[in-house]
Amino acid sequence: MAKIKKQPRPKAQTPKGFQDYFGADVTARAEMLNTIAGVYHRYGFDALETSAVETVEALGKFLPDVDRPNEGVFAWEEDNDWLALRYDLTAPLARVAAQYRNDLPFPYRRYAMGPVWRNEKPGPGRFRQFYQCDADTVGSGSVAADAEICAMLSDTLEAVGIDRGDYVIRVNNRKVLNGVMEVAGLVGDDKEAERGIVLRAIDKLDRLGPEGVRALLGEGRKDASGDFTKGAGLADEQAEIVMGFMTAKRDTGAGTVTRLRELVAGSNVGLDGAAELEAIAELLDAQGYNAERIEIDPSVVRGLGYYTGPVYEAELTFEIQDEKGRPRNFGSVAGGGRYDDLVKRFTGQEVPATGVSIGVDRLLAALRAKGQMKQSALGPVVVTVMDRDRMSDYQSMVAELRNAGVRAEVYLGNPKNFGNQLKYADKRQSPIAIIAGSDEFNTGIVQIKDLILGAEIAKNATLEEWKDRPSQYEVPRDQMIAKVREILAGQSDG
Amino acid sequence: MAKIKKQPRPKAQTPKGFQDYFGADVTARAEMLNTIAGVYHRYGFDALETSAVETVEALGKFLPDVDRPNEGVFAWEEDNDWLALRYDLTAPLARVAAQYRNDLPFPYRRYAMGPVWRNEKPGPGRFRQFYQCDADTVGSGSVAADAEICAMLSDTLEAVGIDRGDYVIRVNNRKVLNGVMEVAGLVGDDKEAERGIVLRAIDKLDRLGPEGVRALLGEGRKDASGDFTKGAGLADEQAEIVMGFMTAKRDTGAGTVTRLRELVAGSNVGLDGAAELEAIAELLDAQGYNAERIEIDPSVVRGLGYYTGPVYEAELTFEIQDEKGRPRNFGSVAGGGRYDDLVKRFTGQEVPATGVSIGVDRLLAALRAKGQMKQSALGPVVVTVMDRDRMSDYQSMVAELRNAGVRAEVYLGNPKNFGNQLKYADKRQSPIAIIAGSDEFNTGIVQIKDLILGAEIAKNATLEEWKDRPSQYEVPRDQMIAKVREILAGQSDG
Repeated sequence: MAKIKKQPRPKAQTPKGFQDYFGADVTARAEMLNTIAGVYHRYGFDALETSAVETVEALGKFLPDVDRPNEGVFAWEEDNDWLALRYDLTAPLARVAAQYRNDLPFPYRRYAMGPVWRNEKPGPGRFRQFYQCDADTVGSGSVAADAEICAMLSDTLEAVGIDRGDYVIRVNNRKVLNGVMEVAGLVGDDKEAERGIVLRAIDKLDRLGPEGVRALLGEGRKDASGDFTKGAGLADEQAEIVMGFMTAKRDTGAGTVTRLRELVAGSNVGLDGAAELEAIAELLDAQGYNAERIEIDPSVVRGLGYYTGPVYEAELTFEIQDEKGRPRNFGSVAGGGRYDDLVKRFTGQEVPATGVSIGVDRLLAALRAKGQMKQSALGPVVVTVMDRDRMSDYQSMVAELRNAGVRAEVYLGNPKNFGNQLKYADKRQSPIAIIAGSDEFNTGIVQIKDLILGAEIAKNATLEEWKDRPSQYEVPRDQMIAKVREILAGQSDG
Repeated sequence: MAKIKKQPRPKAQTPKGFQDYFGADVTARAEMLNTIAGVYHRYGFDALETSAVETVEALGKFLPDVDRPNEGVFAWEEDNDWLALRYDLTAPLARVAAQYRNDLPFPYRRYAMGPVWRNEKPGPGRFRQFYQCDADTVGSGSVAADAEICAMLSDTLEAVGIDRGDYVIRVNNRKVLNGVMEVAGLVGDDKEAERGIVLRAIDKLDRLGPEGVRALLGEGRKDASGDFTKGAGLADEQAEIVMGFMTAKRDTGAGTVTRLRELVAGSNVGLDGAAELEAIAELLDAQGYNAERIEIDPSVVRGLGYYTGPVYEAELTFEIQDEKGRPRNFGSVAGGGRYDDLVKRFTGQEVPATGVSIGVDRLLAALRAKGQMKQSALGPVVVTVMDRDRMSDYQSMVAELRNAGVRAEVYLGNPKNFGNQLKYADKRQSPIAIIAGSDEFNTGIVQIKDLILGAEIAKNATLEEWKDRPSQYEVPRDQMIAKVREILAGQSDG
């Protein structure tokens, strides 16, 4: 019979831009999602889970990067339909709000969490799949809905462990920005390109500074590498109006609103926007969310083209060290705003909506950078195998441990080399190893080895002390659970 | 300026075969995943989360339905690579075990949960995205690892609310089946097609009965609709050996193993398999998992081609009613087995592995069918808006309620029509509405409406009683929390 031609072996590799998460990283994320969902739920939002796959038609072209409206998603053709992985949780919500509009309660208040996918060039810390956790109120035009989201975002950040003072939520209003565009003479369909450049320029204030933004409002900007980015080509007086808007922040919300009113004088939409910001600031103030937590800041524009009113962004204000050890601000971990036209795409009817998206992976990275998160979790108690014919005795031991609420397992690898069993326990970061061979079974005892203490001793003690094995205890079999509990309690005190 | 051509509106539709999950359905699943993960974790398994996307190359051709090895996944081309959504959690695990083989502890024990995607024809209750929750031990050839998974599966089913006696875990061994094939003369590469048909025929015993399977072992079978399925074409004596295997189950595990030994006499691999089953039965017996919970049953084959040793399947044994009200067994909710070749695909080295996959959505459906799950959850307390200038007072009320641990929200829709606010609360299944207008604010009181009692009264009481509004209470503002708590406590007693 002919030999089947040998196939080359497949490569064992995560696809480019995707990542695997192990152990404590997975459980920390699950705990964070659970905490966030708890806050959202307490605020009255209901859970919604849509599938990862949507029709391209339903997703629409609302990707953050307006330069590439047709790209950015993973899409494929299926039965003459184009399907794609969702790139955020807002587009599926708009579809749901339209699809079930006759059955859902309105306002429809939902929270959602899960991965989203972006077909973007991967980079360091920049992945093609990441988690979001959103809450939105669909069907309310009231600024009270926007204010509530900002308050809830503040509560949420504190609930997951960001201390008050370590974050600030910045609120702005697209209508004020539109008023500024109007005053600067940037209205009309023929100015769309300019407005886009202005928007992105303001969004880069943090990174480029005022001079960089000013350059982009005018002719353009050459970066350190020599690359030239074309500017909006505004005249000086136009550019000054935009610059004035970006730097309109004053010490109090009321002061900022007054300054914005001056800047957009003569623009109805701009004045509308200023009044909304004033109402939001008053509502939040009355509830005790002062400017330390939530402030009006006209430099926040949020990249997304679909926002129509208030926009908000949560920034972490503490410094962390970047890959090269340089201090930098951690930056944005959540954002959102009002988008009154997304549901209208489907139904033709305007449905006002507002909501927030928390970048859960970034928030986890922030807590990790601040050292506020356990880097790893303890492994199981490992019952070692000295005598492979005693497997059911070892299984009984772990069953007993588990029933006592202790995480435990029998060593299931090849038991021949006992050193490998202890190496395994070490690699699992196991707190304890249980050891029992024929001698122990015959005399009704077990050996219990405190691996944490053992490692400490191995690091610090002299060889002489180590030989006394003070981290290993011999106890009667029926006192195994009690001794294990005692050791675990001592370890968690230490 | 030319008008932009009007685009047709996108359809607000879930893609074919996909589904949206709302409210309690989402939280019930999250709770179940959490419970299962808790058991897996206590058994010593560590979390792993791979991304939804894998290279087609890494996924391989291991889809359950061997008739269509190249289909069944959602795949697309990206930068000259073919990517696909994972169709299970085992293929990504094999990739991870190979990719990180120098860093992971071995045996590598991991659990994973999340959606998987199948590009199959959707049908009633058959979706293209569904949840799995897996645990696997990679790098252990010991049958103790198989026995442990069966024991853990039993513990898990009971932990999520399946009563003992309402499920059974059936264990078989592919090696015994291979022995049977050998004895029946079905070895060699040229018999691969026949073996596939035999495997699928056995797998259909539940549905087709012994006669149906017998027909498929021989010439073939015509179903009720007249469609003919080609059979394996076995001679009578060959078919009888296979039929004998399927019906080899005896009252005790030991009895079944004895019968299997007779059937595979002369086949080394078959006798190996019987010995493994015996060892598993003994281990489980010693730990108190008797045949009521876990039994040896040779009729279980599991469709997947990649199993190489013990296979197991959890079946729910209680009857439910199908769509047409007919009683039927709920059937399989979990399954797994030993697959010693999946990691070898990548590395060339054999890495024995065994694991289980729980079909979380089916398990949820089972609990729902048994009425062991809340069909819905209560909505938030709704603070109604009588006076829209008092918004910050209403916000203070909800803040107070939330701080007291009560789920609450202000009505954020248009407050003009008060009836709509109560209709909203009704649709949200809110337990309580809070009502306060100028009169209430001026006299320092609030109205608290028990909506559950109110609905009861509206259903049962005469109009006269209803007019007395006994479900609405007027309390001083500072007693709002106490009264809300009292009403909620009464409702949960009721």
